[in-house]
Amino acid sequence: MVLPDGTKHYHRLKIGVMGSASGPQTQDPIAREKAAKLGAEISRRGHIFINGACPGLPNDALLAAQAVGGFTVGISPAFSEYQHVHEYLSPHDHDLIIYTGLGFMERDIINIRSADGVVIVGGGIGTLNEFTIAYDEGRPIGIVTNSGGISNSIPHIVQELCMRELPPNIVFDDDPVTLLDKLETAIRSFPLPLVKDERVTKHGIPG
Amino acid sequence: MVLPDGTKHYHRLKIGVMGSASGPQTQDPIAREKAAKLGAEISRRGHIFINGACPGLPNDALLAAQAVGGFTVGISPAFSEYQHVHEYLSPHDHDLIIYTGLGFMERDIINIRSADGVVIVGGGIGTLNEFTIAYDEGRPIGIVTNSGGISNSIPHIVQELCMRELPPNIVFDDDPVTLLDKLETAIRSFPLPLVKDERVTKHGIPG
Amino acid sequence: MVLPDGTKHYHRLKIGVMGSASGPQTQDPIAREKAAKLGAEISRRGHIFINGACPGLPNDALLAAQAVGGFTVGISPAFSEYQHVHEYLSPHDHDLIIYTGLGFMERDIINIRSADGVVIVGGGIGTLNEFTIAYDEGRPIGIVTNSGGISNSIPHIVQELCMRELPPNIVFDDDPVTLLDKLETAIRSFPLPLVKDERVTKHGIPG
Amino acid sequence: MVLPDGTKHYHRLKIGVMGSASGPQTQDPIAREKAAKLGAEISRRGHIFINGACPGLPNDALLAAQAVGGFTVGISPAFSEYQHVHEYLSPHDHDLIIYTGLGFMERDIINIRSADGVVIVGGGIGTLNEFTIAYDEGRPIGIVTNSGGISNSIPHIVQELCMRELPPNIVFDDDPVTLLDKLETAIRSFPLPLVKDERVTKHGIPG
Repeated sequence: MVLPDGTKHYHRLKIGVMGSASGPQTQDPIAREKAAKLGAEISRRGHIFINGACPGLPNDALLAAQAVGGFTVGISPAFSEYQHVHEYLSPHDHDLIIYTGLGFMERDIINIRSADGVVIVGGGIGTLNEFTIAYDEGRPIGIVTNSGGISNSIPHIVQELCMRELPPNIVFDDDPVTLLDKLETAIRSFPLPLVKDERVTKHGIPG
Repeated sequence: MVLPDGTKHYHRLKIGVMGSASGPQTQDPIAREKAAKLGAEISRRGHIFINGACPGLPNDALLAAQAVGGFTVGISPAFSEYQHVHEYLSPHDHDLIIYTGLGFMERDIINIRSADGVVIVGGGIGTLNEFTIAYDEGRPIGIVTNSGGISNSIPHIVQELCMRELPPNIVFDDDPVTLLDKLETAIRSFPLPLVKDERVTKHGIPG
Repeated sequence: MVLPDGTKHYHRLKIGVMGSASGPQTQDPIAREKAAKLGAEISRRGHIFINGACPGLPNDALLAAQAVGGFTVGISPAFSEYQHVHEYLSPHDHDLIIYTGLGFMERDIINIRSADGVVIVGGGIGTLNEFTIAYDEGRPIGIVTNSGGISNSIPHIVQELCMRELPPNIVFDDDPVTLLDKLETAIRSFPLPLVKDERVTKHGIPG
Repeated sequence: MVLPDGTKHYHRLKIGVMGSASGPQTQDPIAREKAAKLGAEISRRGHIFINGACPGLPNDALLAAQAVGGFTVGISPAFSEYQHVHEYLSPHDHDLIIYTGLGFMERDIINIRSADGVVIVGGGIGTLNEFTIAYDEGRPIGIVTNSGGISNSIPHIVQELCMRELPPNIVFDDDPVTLLDKLETAIRSFPLPLVKDERVTKHGIPG
């Protein structure tokens, strides 16, 4: 894949799936169906599926991605498989799990940086944390609207509450398949910032 | 200081100040006045003042804390003083700066963990990131209400958007002095979780 | 795979390859041949190959692992593929690269934690850093002896210089194939510590 | 303080003290005396004293630094004071402790980056880890020779085992007071690298 600036993209796309891992959103049948449809479509397109190796909606997406035969990666907060399974009580059906040993908050950061683009389904406080990281670091983001939680509130949060702009690499759609089309376009059209603290060189001030 | 469980608290309290470092909130005279009043009061009470060594409202608080003669600490995203001053173009009037070399996102985490309680004034996306970390890790939080940005939207964000509970160690007040009273009570009444991923032992699931 | 304590190991083994990425050791034909033999054998056994996505001996191992058709993962210090390729000037032939955005030192930690066991070929200061992490965190380690650099000095460093014990999950062999036999036995015989700071619960003191 | 390139150094110097936290070196009376002499001299010169908030030789230095009335900072692996005191069973007499919540290995990195220069007394595997980080990131290092552990083996490790150069900002002396003179000169003469991964811009290859 050749990027707009003429450089080449060397690898299969990696799409990260974030969203409610606990709370009422994880029981919403519409959210669960959208998560599963999303996971399956990521695999069907030949992309590598990534999530935080957590339960809830990202795990619904994982199981669907695997049913289609895609390659799946989990980024774990745990130090080891034992801790992941027996202390975090977390899913581990992925083809590969990266054990960061860093805990939830730092795991969220690595999770986002490992994906070329991230998709959010439903989502509570933990997902909002991931959204703020992805936003601040300029990562392309797809929002599955009408999937509960924060999914319909992103423009409200960014523009009204935080008084910031909604950048063009954040895309929205009710339908996970159409959303992936838009996200792929955003990934191709808006390369990542050159450094993780791009705001430094742009503004000299944090967001 | 003796904590409710009978253990002793060994050090001077450290109060972290977070809030808008850029954007329109930093120019709001009411927010700036509240930030300065907050910083001065932290010093006046003999607490150690901590911020992210960033510009904006946390820097207004810093300068006021120093004017009163308090000890002030900055947690920098930069690798060195040179990078802090000449690339991040960040303030450096603190008595002590910790250079994490980790960038903004990971700096936010260390910033919060270094404080016994954090206070939020104004705030955009970066501050929202810090709020979600402090919330998820059970850190006592004081919100200076009516200081712009997200300061009046925390219950809305937690309860309505994220569908989570508002824990009793998050306190609110228009007045920074009264807020510090409430925050000190919260710090004494609600000791920190025993581990940073407390949710693991409680629920086995991320927030 | 069932571990000695009766718990199950759920995934394909992941073997990390560390060693000289720069310096004179990278030009030693014997070290390069051993690195290639190691990488090929990891793939041949169906294990997932991991390295730090760096040049030198770990890259020799990577190319051999790929020639055999194994699945290969790189843990990058960079924030993005662009930074990895154009600033770090690092190899990127892996099937999957995790972009940590953390820099070399923190990358080393994630690199080690992601592998069930690590193998060291040759090695200078950077590799010594990785060895001390793996040692301190109780990760099984295989040393390809007579591959230059620190490869013949590990017992000297641990026992004579640092005055510590050589644990039984560090194994040695001149031949990468025999070494992998020994490392697999060590991985099965000595499960990882239950927490990353095992020394805490054992001794209350850092190593 | 004005640096050689004409830029100003804004803060009191911060000197980090590393060394054996466990093992036989911590009982050596000569090492303990040198550690105490070092800590006292750091305070006497008006520098800020930093250590990893661990037991052993760095704690001997801390107590001496405090006896002279200096300001002392600990960088803790723990998430909270409770965990620091009751799980890590670590000293906490510092004027200020930064709780990173990151564990030993990542704490070592922040510990080093927080100091303008680091001094090593005695030292086992944990200290060797810290040395490799400081070396790789170009931090000025003072070695208290003849203090046991790795203190007399640094040139051997760097030049003979790792086949690397000994940079001019690593200084050596038997006497902690003379060593501090040399370290201060090194700090003034050799500013830190401009970025933490300086090797990237220099060589494109990890160390």
